[in-house]
This record gives sequence, C-alpha cells and structure tokens, in this order.
Amino acid sequence: MSGAESDRLLSLPSKNHEKFLRTLFDNVLDKAIFDGTKRENKVLEWTDPEELQKKLNMDLKDDPDSDETLLKLANDTIKYSVKTGHPYFVNQLFSCVDPYGFAGQLITDALNPSVYTYEVSPVFILMEEVVLKEMREIVGYKNGEGDGIFCPGGSLANGYSISCARYHAFPDVKAKGLHSLPRLVLFTSADAHYSVKKLASFMGIGTDNVYLIRTDECGKMDMSHLESEILRAKEENALPFMVSATAGTTVLGAFDPLEKIADLCEKYNLWMHVDAAWGGGALMSQKYKKLLKGIERSDSVTWNPHKMLACPQQCSTFLCRHEGILSECHSSNAAYLFQKDKFYDTKYDTGDKHIQCGRRADVYKFWYMWRAKGTKGFEKHVDQIFEKAEYFTELIKNREGFELIAEPECTNICFWYIPKKLRNLPRDDQFNQELHKIAPKVKERMMKEGSMMITYQPLNSKPNFFRLVLQDSSLTKQDMMHFVDIIVKYSEEL
Amino acid sequence: MSGAESDRLLSLPSKNHEKFLRTLFDNVLDKAIFDGTKRENKVLEWTDPEELQKKLNMDLKDDPDSDETLLKLANDTIKYSVKTGHPYFVNQLFSCVDPYGFAGQLITDALNPSVYTYEVSPVFILMEEVVLKEMREIVGYKNGEGDGIFCPGGSLANGYSISCARYHAFPDVKAKGLHSLPRLVLFTSADAHYSVKKLASFMGIGTDNVYLIRTDECGKMDMSHLESEILRAKEENALPFMVSATAGTTVLGAFDPLEKIADLCEKYNLWMHVDAAWGGGALMSQKYKKLLKGIERSDSVTWNPHKMLACPQQCSTFLCRHEGILSECHSSNAAYLFQKDKFYDTKYDTGDKHIQCGRRADVYKFWYMWRAKGTKGFEKHVDQIFEKAEYFTELIKNREGFELIAEPECTNICFWYIPKKLRNLPRDDQFNQELHKIAPKVKERMMKEGSMMITYQPLNSKPNFFRLVLQDSSLTKQDMMHFVDIIVKYSEEL
Ligand SMILES: Cc1ncc(COP(=O)(O)O)c(C=O)c1O
Ligand SMILES: Cc1ncc(COP(=O)(O)O)c(C=O)c1O
Repeated sequence: MSGAESDRLLSLPSKNHEKFLRTLFDNVLDKAIFDGTKRENKVLEWTDPEELQKKLNMDLKDDPDSDETLLKLANDTIKYSVKTGHPYFVNQLFSCVDPYGFAGQLITDALNPSVYTYEVSPVFILMEEVVLKEMREIVGYKNGEGDGIFCPGGSLANGYSISCARYHAFPDVKAKGLHSLPRLVLFTSADAHYSVKKLASFMGIGTDNVYLIRTDECGKMDMSHLESEILRAKEENALPFMVSATAGTTVLGAFDPLEKIADLCEKYNLWMHVDAAWGGGALMSQKYKKLLKGIERSDSVTWNPHKMLACPQQCSTFLCRHEGILSECHSSNAAYLFQKDKFYDTKYDTGDKHIQCGRRADVYKFWYMWRAKGTKGFEKHVDQIFEKAEYFTELIKNREGFELIAEPECTNICFWYIPKKLRNLPRDDQFNQELHKIAPKVKERMMKEGSMMITYQPLNSKPNFFRLVLQDSSLTKQDMMHFVDIIVKYSEEL
Repeated sequence: MSGAESDRLLSLPSKNHEKFLRTLFDNVLDKAIFDGTKRENKVLEWTDPEELQKKLNMDLKDDPDSDETLLKLANDTIKYSVKTGHPYFVNQLFSCVDPYGFAGQLITDALNPSVYTYEVSPVFILMEEVVLKEMREIVGYKNGEGDGIFCPGGSLANGYSISCARYHAFPDVKAKGLHSLPRLVLFTSADAHYSVKKLASFMGIGTDNVYLIRTDECGKMDMSHLESEILRAKEENALPFMVSATAGTTVLGAFDPLEKIADLCEKYNLWMHVDAAWGGGALMSQKYKKLLKGIERSDSVTWNPHKMLACPQQCSTFLCRHEGILSECHSSNAAYLFQKDKFYDTKYDTGDKHIQCGRRADVYKFWYMWRAKGTKGFEKHVDQIFEKAEYFTELIKNREGFELIAEPECTNICFWYIPKKLRNLPRDDQFNQELHKIAPKVKERMMKEGSMMITYQPLNSKPNFFRLVLQDSSLTKQDMMHFVDIIVKYSEEL
C-alpha cells in the first residue's frame, strides 16, 4: 500500500493529514464561523431538495475522493447549510455558535470519549457530576443533592421523568412491565411539548393515557381542569402517577403555575416533573428566575442548556431530587463494562444509570462556556435576551398591524402582522383564512432571499402566527427593528 | 460593556476570538490528535478520582476565566483524558480518531444543525436518506428500500426495534399502551447486549419478559432452546412478538445463526431484529459478510458505524425493511414544527419519525469518511482488522500459557493468560479464584503505566478473561506481539 493510499485508509492521524486538517479548519473558521454569522451575509442559500441533490452530489462511491474534492465538499456543505449561528436565525429554540462552546466541542471531538466509566472517561465522568450538582443547586434542590444525567435531548429527558416517576410509584415495573399494573395516567398541558406524549407512547403508556389539561389564553395550565382530570382518572380506576408541568412552553413561552401544581401533586401524591427544557435558562438570572417559582418543590426537571443558554447542540439534562433513583430504575450491572473488581472506587462508573451505553461528553462544551463566562456571564446573557424580547414586544405593540397572541413571559414572542388590505375586514372565518396564508408566504420569501428565518404555526383555532425566538445575546435593538421592518415589508408586498 | 467583556459574553464569534480558536486548534491537533495517537506516548495518565478533582479544578465560578486559563484547562483536559484514538486502546468496541471523521465533526459542529426539517437542515436531511439507503442495500434489503434513522447509540436503535415490532403486531399500542394487551414476550440470547433488556424495561415490557436463550460454547443462540421458549411463552398465554438476534456479540463476538432464526421467525410470525451494532461493519467486506448470512431476511437491523468502521462517537443506525413504519409508529405531527403548508415538499421533513426532537447530524462524519475512503476503503479496513485478529489468535495459540475462551469469529478475541505459577495446578475452584484475580491486576498496572488498555470480564461461570478488541486498521503485527508481551510480562511479574 502506498503512503498516500494508506493515509486515506487508516483511521490513524499522521503528519500527512496535517495540511488537510489545517486547510479545512481555516475554511470552517472563515466560512461557517465568521462569514456564516455576519449580519450582512445570508442566513441560507435556498435550494430546493431536488436541485440540492444535484448540486451537492451526495452519492457514495467505491473509490475514494481526493483531498481537494473533500475540501470542496466541505465548502459546499457549508454553503448550502442554514447558518443557525446567524443572528437572523430566530426560527427555533436553539441558535448561535458560541465560540467557547465551539471550542469545547473541538476538544471533545478530538478526544472522542464515551462516558460510562471513570476508566475510559475520567475527566468527563467527574465533570458531569460537578455540573449537574450546580444545576440542582440553581433549581433549588437542598444542597444540590439528588440525581441527574446528560442525555441526547429534552425529549429523552422527559422520557426519563416518566421512567423515574413510574418506578417510584411501582418499583415492580422494571421487571414485570406495565402488564402487571392498572392503567397508568399522566397529566400535561395541551401546550406542553409533544415529546411527553411521544415518549409516553414509546414507553408503553400510550398517548390516550396522557390527559391533556386545558390552558388559559396565555398558555398556562388550568388548575381546576387539572384537578378534575385527576379525579376523572381515579373514577375510571386508572392510576394517576405524574404531572408534567412546563416552564417555558414551546410556542407561547408560558410558565405553568408551579406552586399550585406542587400543591396538587402533594395532595394526590403525584410525581411532579417540570419540563424547563426551554425556560430553565431563566434560573440563571436573579431577575427572571421568579418565573419558575416552585420548581424547587418538583421531583424532577428537564433543562436544556442548548436552548436558552446558547450552548451547542446537544446539551440536555435531566435533574432529579431523589438520590440514586436513576440507577435503581435503569441499572443492569453488565459484567463486561461495570466490573466491581476494579482497582478504583467504582461509584464513579455512573454509566449504568442511563438507558444509553456509549454516550458523547455533552457536558464539556457547557462546562467550558460556563468557565469562559462565569455564572454572572450566563446571567447577563439571560437578562439581555429578556430585555430584547421586552423591547421587541414594545415595538410591535406600538406599530400598526401587529397583534400579540399573548403577553410574552419568556423570550419567544408570538404575533400576527395583519397587512393593510386585511385590516378593516370583519374578524370572521374568511379573515382567518386569509391571515392564515400570510406567514407561510412571508417565510417563503425570507428563505428564498436568505434574509432571516422566523417560524410560524397555528395554535388551537388561531390562524398561522409568527414566533420570534431570542436566545442570542448579541442581538441589538437595531436587529429588533430590522425584524419588524422585514415582516412588514414582505407582508405588504404579497 | 467593554470590548473584551462582551467578546466573552456574547454567543457571536468575532475576529477577536480568532486567535483564541486558532491557538486552541493548534493545541488540540498537536496534543490530542497527533501526540495522543503516537505509539511511544502513553494511552493515559492515570490519576485517581480524588486527585484528579484537585489537579483539574472543575468548580464553576461566578466570574469568567481568562483565555489563558481556558487554554490551560483545555490542555489539562487533554492530558488527563484517556487517548481513545491511541493504537494501544483496545479496550472497547470503539476507538480511533479517524482524520476524516474528525474533519466531518468539525464541519458539523461549526454548522450546529438540528436534523428535523429540510428547512433547517437541508444538507443533512437529504444525506441521511442517501446513507441509510446505501446501508440497507448492503444489508440486502430489496433495492435498499425500507426505513431507517440515525440515533444516539445502538442501545436506542435496539429500542426502536422493539417499538416497531410491537407496533407492527399491535398498532393500537401507540394510543392505548401495553395496558390493553396481553403480556408481550421477546427473545434474545444470554450473550446479547444488555440494552435489549434495558430498553424493554424502559418501554414498559419489563426485564422478566425478555426471555434469555441459552448460547453454545461459542456464544451463539441455541435454536432448540429458542423454539422451546417460544412455545413456553405461548403456553403461558403470553404473546411472543420478536426475536433480537445478535451479529457480533459484545464479549465473544459471536454471530447468531441468522438463517435459522429467520426460519423460526417465519414459522411463528415473529419480528426478526438483528443487533449488528458491532458486527455490522463486516458487511462491507466481500470476504467476511458471510458471517451475517440471513440478515437480508430480517425485519430490522442495528448497525453502529462508530464501532467496527471506526467512525467517531456517536454514529448509530436503525434500519428497517418496512417502509414508513417509523413515522406511523412515532409521529405526532406537532403543528409548530412540521407545518404542512410549507412552500416545499414536506416529505423531506423526516424528524417526526424519531423519538428525539432536536438531533445532531451524526450522518456527516460517516458520509465524509465514506467519501474519503470509498466503499473499497471500508472493505480494506475491515479485512485488515480481521487479518490482525486472525494473526493475534494464531500468536496466542502458539504461546504457552494462553487459552482461548472460544474460537473467535469477529475481531474481538477473548482469552486467559495463565501465569507459570498457576499452570500446573488442578483446574478446580481454587484455580478459578486465582485466575479470576489476574486480569484486574494486570489491567491496573497497564493503566498506571499508561502502556495499553484492554478490558476483562467474567462470563457465566468463567473467571475473568481478557477481551482484545480490534477496530483500528493501522494496527500491525508488531503491535499484536507487543500486546502479547505486555500481558505475559505483567502477569508473570505479579
Ligand atoms: C418545552 C420543550 N420541552 C422539550 C423539548 C424537546 O427538547 P429536544 O429538542 O432537546 O428533544 C422542547 C423542544 O423544543 C421544548 O420546547
Ligand atoms: C452488540 C451490541 N449492541 C448494542 C450495543 C450498544 O451500542 P451503543 O453503545 O452505541 O448504545 C453494543 C455496545 O457495545 C453492542 O456491543
């Protein structure tokens, strides 16, 4: 095998790869990290699916590509990808390429760890416990005690909450399954994230057994409906076992009344979970943490640093007040991995409390950002995005044609823009149908021009409305005005 | 806010971060990628947990650290982490830092995508389908048709198999849950990966309802026991619904007899899953794919490119013969994300077939490696590691004191080394107890010296034995001799 060929084949870095890796990193830095986040550049280069398949030939082949082709492929990948770190990407509950977060990822990638044992991942295993404890303290669990894990996404974190709640109520479920139990029922609001239902289904509980509680006009769970649904389940001889409250709903950004939910959970002996995947970041701020008052009374929490704290994808945590429950509930003591006759204290081999076996070290980028910014830096970050959200809200309140869906509590803001030509029509079905068509058209133009990305959706009987999401603390008042202007312009020019 | 302070705080890269990022990359390249994979360097710098906590102060603080401190923290992280890319890390079913895989990760990290919609992840959404189709073709599904996903780990892929199998047999389970069904039973071998049981428990089936089938001395599932267990479940009025076969078991590397399992699955109308998380890579080789003969008759497959193909962590796939089943089984049609009134064909918005919502683009590093090596490159990679495994096996067969646990079929090789002082003892309990203590001691010395990492475990009544795992195609015959020498030396010097 010739030198060049073996460089290509072998999974071992050699000095011959150095030039390639350096050139690639230069490109990545210039094109993705710097150009990709400049306001004057496009958020995306829209290409439709069929065309993209042709432009970026993705086919796999028998023979290797040259380093030159590979660099071109990398550049094309960057070109045709959405720049989720661009300040005008306000489309999802994640965004930004934080430089320190990115740095943390680089280090993790180069070390390629799998976090199950101290033996294989000494640094990351210890670091997870440090970070999780700190997060539990911020949540308000006594002395930061309890349990927790990093897991790939808030959806799975919500699944862990169901798993722990169910096990807490019926430890036999681990071995015997649901077959041995009466029908289990859990409660969440109609505005909760879809993962609660999805995971309940995956976990054998069934979507029908997730009782959806009505929300008020702001998107908060209705307490009297919650209580009556708990009673209904009991009357049906089903077994209510948990309430999944939401702190920062996906669309409206509403915070469920956690204190009252805690009261009801105590009264009926239910596990209280708080899905703070989105809103959890507000806990970092002395000013805004009041939105989550009562979370310290919960049994468990989902909190995604990759959302409001702008940590790179993915960084999600499940935090729990009950020490040791995760391993009780999930451990299987595989002898090939979690040997007990190791020469160090195997309490550090925490992998068995997960349902994953191999697992990335998602903790590192978050820890690295935390060290780079300090807790105070995160606080400022949160305060700034809340201030910008308040500013944007004021802006549109004072601008003709805009209507808020609800007074925002979080940094996602939902609103309609009603173009002049619709403004004087009666508010009937016809009006709603017309309004419903605006957002998709405006979004289409944004994407085709690459000027910004903001999402839209209907909710209950409400026609499509825009949802602006802020988690980028570099956004300015000018940016807010810019968003308003684009939306007005595109809507009027339809 | 001063310039420096705002650089630190804002999640927006600016030219002021460039120097930091470049210095960091240089360090990562030198220390983790190059030095970390050199044979003359240590695999790890052993430090025990309490000491490591002191040396690498991980505490989170109110105030930011300086860039200098951050660079030092990065260097310390590299220093104290296990070099999983080092050729002498033969401890787990993953290893290597493939230069092209690492390059693919860099690009992905810089773009920070979440793969749910074409709108947000155009390149990666299309690429997933290209790669999954190619993998299904290699598995042998007709024209590569069917369904599939990337998911965070083979454990979850095994969970998806249970989910699809259960839904296929009882579509009502999605809404009604297991409560409405008779007791479900699935079958897997006693040597199968623990994730089958773990996920069955998480999914409400219960560990007791995973019937473990005996294995023969090579670790293959015993067909007559399988059939009698299926019949037992039926007699108990339980509902058998799937068999999870293993192609490349975790410890012994055994391949279950897939053709015979397919026959039984047809006879009893059971879903046939093949957990080829580890052994799947062999499908890339014309010479070794025969080990998985019959996999083309399966309903679904777990295949982790991050194991035998040396792709970076994590890269795992679930492949399925039944087109559309993943969305039928998991979709929840959240209106805020999977809008149907988009301006492009929303069949490309494939996110709803996952149980995750946000999701990393694990496809890219694999695709990038595939383009760098070609299918032929992967084939050579696989052939080389198998040849080295055969070479190692011959070596220890011809060296006094070594005993194979079973004739290896895959690139994991399990064996004892019996030190001289034990060699002439009667093979009784006392002997087993003594032998049991050897591997942990040898491992301790390896780790403390940083010379190599190989794992050990007991199995059934067998005392601790070593398991060498090869997935690094840069390993040479010299390396194999080196491993043998270290094991002999350390064992004899105990
Ligand atoms: C409130 C809430 N919970 C959970 C999730 C799921 O998080 P992930 O996308 O990390 O799975 C989301 C995602 O947007 C969310 O908004
Ligand atoms: C046969 C087998 N299946 C599944 C898995 C789980 O894969 P992961 O670690 O990616 O969850 C493993 C892990 O070693 C395995 O050996």
